[in-house]
Amino acid sequence: MMKKKILIGGMIIILTLLAAVQIWAEPAAANPAIDGLRQVQQYNFSINILAMLLIGFGFLMVFAKKYGYGATTGTFLVIGIGLPLYLFLRSTGILSAAAIPADTIKGLLFAEFGVAAALIAMGAILGRVKLYQYLIIAVLVIPVYMINEWLVIDGGLGITKGFVDTAGSVSIHAFGAYFGLGLAFALTRKQDRAKAVGNDPVSNRFSLIGSMILWLFWPSFCSALVGPDQFQVTVINTILALCGATLSTYLLSRIFGKGKVNIGDIANASLAGGVAIGATCNVVSPPVAFVIGIAAGALCVFGYAKIQGKLQNIFKFVDTCGVHNLHGMPGILGGIIAVFVVPGIVVPQLVGILFTVVLALVSGVGIGFVVRLTGNKKDAYEDGSEFENAASE
Amino acid sequence: MMKKKILIGGMIIILTLLAAVQIWAEPAAANPAIDGLRQVQQYNFSINILAMLLIGFGFLMVFAKKYGYGATTGTFLVIGIGLPLYLFLRSTGILSAAAIPADTIKGLLFAEFGVAAALIAMGAILGRVKLYQYLIIAVLVIPVYMINEWLVIDGGLGITKGFVDTAGSVSIHAFGAYFGLGLAFALTRKQDRAKAVGNDPVSNRFSLIGSMILWLFWPSFCSALVGPDQFQVTVINTILALCGATLSTYLLSRIFGKGKVNIGDIANASLAGGVAIGATCNVVSPPVAFVIGIAAGALCVFGYAKIQGKLQNIFKFVDTCGVHNLHGMPGILGGIIAVFVVPGIVVPQLVGILFTVVLALVSGVGIGFVVRLTGNKKDAYEDGSEFENAASE
Amino acid sequence: MMKKKILIGGMIIILTLLAAVQIWAEPAAANPAIDGLRQVQQYNFSINILAMLLIGFGFLMVFAKKYGYGATTGTFLVIGIGLPLYLFLRSTGILSAAAIPADTIKGLLFAEFGVAAALIAMGAILGRVKLYQYLIIAVLVIPVYMINEWLVIDGGLGITKGFVDTAGSVSIHAFGAYFGLGLAFALTRKQDRAKAVGNDPVSNRFSLIGSMILWLFWPSFCSALVGPDQFQVTVINTILALCGATLSTYLLSRIFGKGKVNIGDIANASLAGGVAIGATCNVVSPPVAFVIGIAAGALCVFGYAKIQGKLQNIFKFVDTCGVHNLHGMPGILGGIIAVFVVPGIVVPQLVGILFTVVLALVSGVGIGFVVRLTGNKKDAYEDGSEFENAASE
Repeated sequence: MMKKKILIGGMIIILTLLAAVQIWAEPAAANPAIDGLRQVQQYNFSINILAMLLIGFGFLMVFAKKYGYGATTGTFLVIGIGLPLYLFLRSTGILSAAAIPADTIKGLLFAEFGVAAALIAMGAILGRVKLYQYLIIAVLVIPVYMINEWLVIDGGLGITKGFVDTAGSVSIHAFGAYFGLGLAFALTRKQDRAKAVGNDPVSNRFSLIGSMILWLFWPSFCSALVGPDQFQVTVINTILALCGATLSTYLLSRIFGKGKVNIGDIANASLAGGVAIGATCNVVSPPVAFVIGIAAGALCVFGYAKIQGKLQNIFKFVDTCGVHNLHGMPGILGGIIAVFVVPGIVVPQLVGILFTVVLALVSGVGIGFVVRLTGNKKDAYEDGSEFENAASE
Repeated sequence: MMKKKILIGGMIIILTLLAAVQIWAEPAAANPAIDGLRQVQQYNFSINILAMLLIGFGFLMVFAKKYGYGATTGTFLVIGIGLPLYLFLRSTGILSAAAIPADTIKGLLFAEFGVAAALIAMGAILGRVKLYQYLIIAVLVIPVYMINEWLVIDGGLGITKGFVDTAGSVSIHAFGAYFGLGLAFALTRKQDRAKAVGNDPVSNRFSLIGSMILWLFWPSFCSALVGPDQFQVTVINTILALCGATLSTYLLSRIFGKGKVNIGDIANASLAGGVAIGATCNVVSPPVAFVIGIAAGALCVFGYAKIQGKLQNIFKFVDTCGVHNLHGMPGILGGIIAVFVVPGIVVPQLVGILFTVVLALVSGVGIGFVVRLTGNKKDAYEDGSEFENAASE
Repeated sequence: MMKKKILIGGMIIILTLLAAVQIWAEPAAANPAIDGLRQVQQYNFSINILAMLLIGFGFLMVFAKKYGYGATTGTFLVIGIGLPLYLFLRSTGILSAAAIPADTIKGLLFAEFGVAAALIAMGAILGRVKLYQYLIIAVLVIPVYMINEWLVIDGGLGITKGFVDTAGSVSIHAFGAYFGLGLAFALTRKQDRAKAVGNDPVSNRFSLIGSMILWLFWPSFCSALVGPDQFQVTVINTILALCGATLSTYLLSRIFGKGKVNIGDIANASLAGGVAIGATCNVVSPPVAFVIGIAAGALCVFGYAKIQGKLQNIFKFVDTCGVHNLHGMPGILGGIIAVFVVPGIVVPQLVGILFTVVLALVSGVGIGFVVRLTGNKKDAYEDGSEFENAASE
């Protein structure tokens, strides 16, 4: 009798445990229904980011008043070649820590991050290369981006274990910006430096649409790859950083403009909070995120007002969209802030930042000289040289 | 033998019940995986609404042809200060029925509703205050909005128990509109009344982008906080109300225009269905929603054509965007319709509407006079006075 | 003793099976929580598609420089009448294989597909009918679309069992295009053929916003009704087809333009990959999808450059937006490719395509002549004849 009772009692315990395991196993996605739901949610992030790439970056660059066709077509081309190239290369496993199948949403998300870096680089040389050269640049920058991703983020270098860069302040934004500066150094001619880009109320209103698309979908950029337990705080941090940057942008733009605001500052520097919060978006507290955003917006406006001109004079190049102000400096700021927020990462973090910037700059200059061999655009910032019926009045 | 069989039989029943409980417990979110999925879904609503706030309200106001920079920058500023302020105040619990932590999507959704009211109010005074005064107004209206939310929606008054306003026809739209009218009353100068706002085919096409963003994401505005069992009907009701308003807008605009349509009516009044369905979006049937939309669109066009001018002459103010037509009257219409749809709410509903309108108007006038002390904009509807290189030809 | 052990052993097996069934039953949605999550996900697809309909199709047509008000208002009207009409008709079950309740997201998705076809048809006659005639056309095309959907897709004809058209290359895009060509044949007057549509840098930049909205949300159009196991590959295939079309569009536009690119090609033909992949988006492999996109983009540019003019001269009509190039030919291409990809569907596929094209053309011509009886637009492509203060300088 006793033995039976023990047997039955034991069975109840085992079955109850089995039932419990079933419930608790689900968060770990033993449940295929939940897996399917997660994939669709990741898809939604990927489409939000695609909106940032296509309309966001695309139209932000339409501020160049006679170059709206070129800016949007160039964006289409960089995305059109960049996404398939990353998906293909990553699926083979070469240039990467691990292969990701091409037919997965995860692969798409990683590809979009790579293309973001390419589009940022494009902003530095916008309007000074021919359309097909955007294709050449995209084809050459994606592999370099992947090597940096592998060596710094995925630890290929060996000494960046612990590197903190959740949403790519360093590996996407700073990489793209410094690669673009390298390109610009190699590709800027004397006559380009003499010519103003030019913007007007129509082109700036188009640019603001791009800016707003970037602003509002930025939380998806930051939280796409973050775990469920950090999801909410990542979203709020990103929004607060953007809010902070928007406020400091207005204030500083008004100060530097002696009472008048520069609409280009509003369109661009309001986004610097998103750039800078990227590295630590899932680890800081909301008030800290707000302060990071304020600092990034201020740094960006300061860059446009006081740094860009000097750099351009010293190094004889033109950074058409000022990507150094929006993606370069705020990206590095975000990466450095991580040192103060996450303990024990001083060495890997600084090595990671330095390696990324140097690799981006050097490969940018090198690829820029390669691109130079493939042709010269006659008139900078003019659609008329490459499009039918483009008004170049 | 008998005892054993009973024991074993009982065990089977218990275990089967346990298994059943497991399944049925999940809708109540015992399952952390499902909780996580729900958070991401709420996040998607919040981003849709953010698109409405930033591009929707922002660009709808770009119809003002020489004030596109101001309209978009003002929108950026109201959002940039409004979201953090609401999140902070609400997290403390003051001015509210219950505290909501700042680092939650739920908090973000509530904050967005508050900012929507602030942006609606901004539409009434658009172009007649300096940029920093949009900040001042946002800082002052958010607490008043929260007090109204607490007293009317969350029952703080005691006599509004049963008040029906699911998606804020009254507490968001009518509140924002009447607060804005109060501001406009205090802030309109004689020279502002003499000056036309002005719009042109470019500014109106930009405005239509804002309008369409509002239209298409409106179902997210209405269904963000609705339970799963009412979700589908809420979505369909919102879309049908918008469709109805779009159709009646065309018809009435053509009649009032003697055969010609006013594009401002199309951009604005097509949205009145969304405003009016807000109160009862989850309780009416689809055909009723369609009729509510038709009525709201008609009321809104009638407002633009026949009411606004008279009101402005009587009370000596200017309602730049006509928020009274789009958010004021259709919001109240939606609130009153609830009386006929939901039994037994006559008193709380009418008290809630009246309290909201009076609080909004009175505080709007008061805050308007405070804002007047902080400076005067020289030229209404001109970007040139506050932005560098803004064409004011 | 032996009997007991068997009894207990059997019980353990039964209970374990029960527990397993519970887990595996969930994908089949025994779980109401998961059902609710799925509905919200379907809703997200439906809103993405609504963005395509309203801003996508709407603004793509704003390329017509003096007809931006008409293009957007017409889009509003077609959606405003088309969605409620489809929802109502489909809920009754007439004209369909099976009734779908009006208050469901599923009904909304099907209604959106029908409205997409109506908007495509509208593109063929854009600017040559009065605003209210867009309403008449929408009311008449939706029932024809539903009949085709029933007979071809849902097998009402009896001989199209096996017809492959997952995301409507044939039943939405080709149907809409050939219906539109039928309308255009009946509605084009001599003076319309003599008048150029006209576009300029402002109208084209607006058009590019529509184009980008269509491009980036196209994966939602293709995957909205696809099962979870095919979801990821459908998304990637759609994106790769769009990328391929974008690249071939640039190349061919440059060749046909003798070194200069036509921005209208970029805005339109980049989307042809999405049209053509529709039929087989969930069954081909990613590299094949990329190739289909390349072919579709090339075919579309070829259509704009070499086919449209000849067809218009032979049949004496005007296809304002060139919907034959973007939706007609790429749609049929997509339908025919399915024959080579899915074995054993030659007869049903070809019958389905032929039936769709003939029904669309014939009913388009017939309805076009009916619409002609309801009035004539004085000046083609001019907002001034129907809108107040529309610049027709």
